[in-house]
Amino acid sequence: MVAISPLPHRAVVEHMVRQSVYQRLGKPLPRPAAAPNPLVVNLSSRHCHLTQESVEVLFGKGHQLTVHKWLYQEGQFAAKETLTLIGPRSRVISNLRILGPCRSLNQVELAYTDGIALGFELPLRSSGNIKGTLGCMLMGPAGFFEMTEGVIRALRHVHMSPEDTAFYGVKGGDEMALKIGGPCALKLDKLLVRVDKSFKLEVHIDTDEGNACNLQADTPCELI
Amino acid sequence: MVAISPLPHRAVVEHMVRQSVYQRLGKPLPRPAAAPNPLVVNLSSRHCHLTQESVEVLFGKGHQLTVHKWLYQEGQFAAKETLTLIGPRSRVISNLRILGPCRSLNQVELAYTDGIALGFELPLRSSGNIKGTLGCMLMGPAGFFEMTEGVIRALRHVHMSPEDTAFYGVKGGDEMALKIGGPCALKLDKLLVRVDKSFKLEVHIDTDEGNACNLQADTPCELI
Repeated sequence: MVAISPLPHRAVVEHMVRQSVYQRLGKPLPRPAAAPNPLVVNLSSRHCHLTQESVEVLFGKGHQLTVHKWLYQEGQFAAKETLTLIGPRSRVISNLRILGPCRSLNQVELAYTDGIALGFELPLRSSGNIKGTLGCMLMGPAGFFEMTEGVIRALRHVHMSPEDTAFYGVKGGDEMALKIGGPCALKLDKLLVRVDKSFKLEVHIDTDEGNACNLQADTPCELI
Repeated sequence: MVAISPLPHRAVVEHMVRQSVYQRLGKPLPRPAAAPNPLVVNLSSRHCHLTQESVEVLFGKGHQLTVHKWLYQEGQFAAKETLTLIGPRSRVISNLRILGPCRSLNQVELAYTDGIALGFELPLRSSGNIKGTLGCMLMGPAGFFEMTEGVIRALRHVHMSPEDTAFYGVKGGDEMALKIGGPCALKLDKLLVRVDKSFKLEVHIDTDEGNACNLQADTPCELI
């Protein structure tokens, strides 16, 4: 797997600049700048996670996902491979991106807009909690794979390390809010806190949420 | 024009019930129930407004729009007639609904998701303020009509009567916020206040905003 490591996210650079400017001026840091880590807000387009077995059914025996683009979370990537999804009413979504590396379960994450296009109501679930949800058919170049369950709208969430939860005074499973500025400003409530030692501070919202506020690289965001 | 008048909106019925329950109990009304009018929040799907001349170019000489469904604002309706929109990059949106009655200008209101599908960035404008925006080609059963400008994302807004503005303490052009509850709760800021004696209290949000919070008929909403 050869892929160029991405440039630092704009929010990361801004955080560094802000911290050093305040330091130079000898002024106390305002709260967002005092946070141990920069706040990165990324938009998750529709995508799926697959097991290695499903990848082999869809792309051929022994096939390994290849890196298209590294994501902000360490080791996570958007794969070059995409799929065609066939929904329960035979409607289709093409070019569904696979995120790697492979996981222990198959899961498709769509926006409500996609659910409307496919003609069924998506359940709102936290990632991994797919019991009792509808499935779909996936089509790859080497074959079809039937997912019996796992098509969801993922709950908006924030990835945090224990260092971040200590700063914000929250714990895994809590709900926070995200204020997004700009001309279509809004505040997203019920942002699920997910904690892991390996996590970098990052909020994931979907395309409906991102389009509702027209999230751009320079849109100001604040975690509360 | 013959069309069945719609049932009262759920918010209207709830407002009446709430007011009479509190009255029966002899209790003072909480603030939302004390408002002179019920708060109705409606989702605007993509649509267009046309002049009578454009309607005739698209549907034939002397053609009058026919009522498909009455809207909440008095006299406004979704027409039976729909169009095909061809964007500046030759991408197409089918079944674009026309809202009637005819106006003095042509305007297409899309969501950012539509803009992405069409491949260009929509300007965020208040309705009617279309100077300098991109246009598109419209295709109807009787011909083509080229709009030289007028394709926008409409600013989220609230229709208010003077009675409503007095209650909420705002005036035309002010910005309010709308809290939307439920499992994907959010707060929409920068909600433009539009006032007219004929207006019924109604918030218009687009499909991106509606899908971000999964707005349903029974989703609790509060204007602040």
